[in-house]
Amino acid sequence: MRMVDLINKKRLGEELSAEEIRFIIKGFTDGSIQDYQMAAWMMAVVFQGMTYREIAELTSAMVATGDTVDLSALDGIKVDKHSTGGVGDTTTLVVAPLVAACGGTVAKMSGRGLGHTGGTLDKLESIDGVCIEKSVDEMIEIVKKTGLAVIGQSSNLVPADKMMYALRDVTATVKSIPLIASSIMSKKIAAGANAIVLDVKTGNGAFMETVEEAEELSNTMVGIGKHLGRRTVAIITDMNQPLGRAVGNGLEVKEAVEVLRGEIAKDDPLYQVCMLLGGKMLQLSGIAKDDAEAVAMLERAIENGSGLERLKAMVTELGGNASMLDNPESLCKTELTLDLAAPEGGYIYALDAMKIGIASSMLGAGRTKKGDKIDYAVGLVLNKRRGDRVEKGEPLFKLYINDKTNLDAVKKMLLDAVKIGSEQPAPMPMVYKVIE
Amino acid sequence: MRMVDLINKKRLGEELSAEEIRFIIKGFTDGSIQDYQMAAWMMAVVFQGMTYREIAELTSAMVATGDTVDLSALDGIKVDKHSTGGVGDTTTLVVAPLVAACGGTVAKMSGRGLGHTGGTLDKLESIDGVCIEKSVDEMIEIVKKTGLAVIGQSSNLVPADKMMYALRDVTATVKSIPLIASSIMSKKIAAGANAIVLDVKTGNGAFMETVEEAEELSNTMVGIGKHLGRRTVAIITDMNQPLGRAVGNGLEVKEAVEVLRGEIAKDDPLYQVCMLLGGKMLQLSGIAKDDAEAVAMLERAIENGSGLERLKAMVTELGGNASMLDNPESLCKTELTLDLAAPEGGYIYALDAMKIGIASSMLGAGRTKKGDKIDYAVGLVLNKRRGDRVEKGEPLFKLYINDKTNLDAVKKMLLDAVKIGSEQPAPMPMVYKVIE
Repeated sequence: MRMVDLINKKRLGEELSAEEIRFIIKGFTDGSIQDYQMAAWMMAVVFQGMTYREIAELTSAMVATGDTVDLSALDGIKVDKHSTGGVGDTTTLVVAPLVAACGGTVAKMSGRGLGHTGGTLDKLESIDGVCIEKSVDEMIEIVKKTGLAVIGQSSNLVPADKMMYALRDVTATVKSIPLIASSIMSKKIAAGANAIVLDVKTGNGAFMETVEEAEELSNTMVGIGKHLGRRTVAIITDMNQPLGRAVGNGLEVKEAVEVLRGEIAKDDPLYQVCMLLGGKMLQLSGIAKDDAEAVAMLERAIENGSGLERLKAMVTELGGNASMLDNPESLCKTELTLDLAAPEGGYIYALDAMKIGIASSMLGAGRTKKGDKIDYAVGLVLNKRRGDRVEKGEPLFKLYINDKTNLDAVKKMLLDAVKIGSEQPAPMPMVYKVIE
Repeated sequence: MRMVDLINKKRLGEELSAEEIRFIIKGFTDGSIQDYQMAAWMMAVVFQGMTYREIAELTSAMVATGDTVDLSALDGIKVDKHSTGGVGDTTTLVVAPLVAACGGTVAKMSGRGLGHTGGTLDKLESIDGVCIEKSVDEMIEIVKKTGLAVIGQSSNLVPADKMMYALRDVTATVKSIPLIASSIMSKKIAAGANAIVLDVKTGNGAFMETVEEAEELSNTMVGIGKHLGRRTVAIITDMNQPLGRAVGNGLEVKEAVEVLRGEIAKDDPLYQVCMLLGGKMLQLSGIAKDDAEAVAMLERAIENGSGLERLKAMVTELGGNASMLDNPESLCKTELTLDLAAPEGGYIYALDAMKIGIASSMLGAGRTKKGDKIDYAVGLVLNKRRGDRVEKGEPLFKLYINDKTNLDAVKKMLLDAVKIGSEQPAPMPMVYKVIE
């Protein structure tokens, strides 16, 4: 088998066999296939696409290049949850404890924030003492005690994905549904869960800007899950404005605690998405039979405080000071807070999630490159959401600041993110589609 | 400027500026742009194409990476001729001397044969003593004396093309009209001629299998020529059967001599194509005003022997034994000749040029890889052409053999190349189109 022939086959739009795909991924990972051939092949994939069968084989071949997590020491169905990345999206810290409180098993490897999007590991680390670097055995022990664990990804999980992503990043081959879907799903498959709920974000703050793209990605990932024997559901949710009101690590943990305490309105987008994701996780786990039953269980876990207890128990197991969650103001103590006032009155018809995410990152809450240090306490809170009425001079955002270096640029970025008009805009859907 | 952004721009089908194209070619050639980025960019070009303006800028940027030949020491218009490669195509050795005999100036760098196609340098070297490795100054001196020179390409002509071709060869990006056109034209532009006549072959023995592909390539190359100030004409000619009857180096020189001696019929395909190519060369040189006048001049150079005299003069200047051209049988003396008989009677309706080219190569006349040694005397001669009547047992080919190792395979290949039917096939055009 020669790589040049396989590149040519894909260039002509033909379907590759499982053997051919394994040859490509194994060869690229072990160095017998050159990066220039891989780059040409991936660009051909960008243009010609892959069938669901091919993408499942690709995912499987990628998984085979590294370690896989064996969760068989845990009974029953292990359910995972993944978001394609958004702004103000603290759902994992809400739904993982709630699902555990309802009897589910959540053993999850999570990631860090990059660019304008946040990451659950960074949020957890805003709690003093938390260490997310745990072995698989330690993770299993934590899950046995608390029903859930969210830890860092082990270093040898899907090395092919790291190598492919590094190459895609410099060859303009990032935007390809087959390559994005296999990248996400390979890590989920390798992480060992039996069931996977995917939150696919769409809108200006998401990597999939249109609903059509999000739907294609969702269908593809659900297709991969089915081919590889994993129960998989994808939910397409809106990311044209931040999901929650809080953007920043400690601030988002505080908001998660507020949801778990029942302090947030049921029509709040964050609350709605949490109920939907948690509901699907319970159904895939065989614990609830439909959305209505699942939501009732999740609401009970909020009302009786068992969800919050699970979060605190896990934080304690990760070495963290769980008492901070009883006093969540402690997570966002900054030298300065500042209100940013509306420059005019009217109705808010746009709150650009990407710009708001970048503003928070500029305050120190995020990274522009891997390894950057972040400030866990800083960030911002939205006082107004899309559709709200605002008067001139009324606060739009509350900023939590430790370093004023970029403050003028942050203010400009935030004011650019807000569009105010004279008419109230028509409401936009929070959830576009459920694909199962 | 970042290469990843330029790959992305081409991926999206956008037009690159001259500055951006120069950045890519210069960077790839000096090593500041990695081969995996170049491979991804070329695959994006395969799918998205390039505008004529972009292809001209690409050609120009490629030319700038190496030496360019300065022919200003020669007066008037210097005319070059290029074939995209065929079987039994000895036109250069006919038209260059004829055009010189009519007052034209032909200073040409030529190539070697590869795969099933022949190369003019190999044919010239079948004459004892010929040395095609000459400097540009030596070439100019030969042209001053004889009106023509055909020598080997200098080593630093368009290094970008060599590097790009090596990468295309292993990344399945060879089949791309913009990349093929810029590769051919960059070498023609760098070689210094003011006027270029292109013979674009189409058919089963050519790289462009369909007339449509050949037309697209022709339009593109003529477009490049116009953008870069070179008078350029392309002629699309048939390569569904070998152009001449001789296939093999010495055998093709012998056939060229036969044309120059007027021993070949005027309706012979080789003769027709020579008249057309030579005619366009004379018109681009400002020597003839139309095809009719040009052909009359070329025929006179055959009749009065001045064409053959020019070829002999050039061969002498290259150090060759020109007297072999007076006795061309000396060019194809082999240990054995053998007739291959028709297995049945009927009309010949196909003579696969590629298979015949491969058969000649298997006899030792060609190379399968660069650097292979070749046998100048061996090859084959077609006794019958498409449309001819043949009786069972009548010779189809005459084989010139020194090494019988592959003989059975050669015979099988040749019999596979011939299709005999009971009806005479409709004639096929020899020339499909002239693009100027």
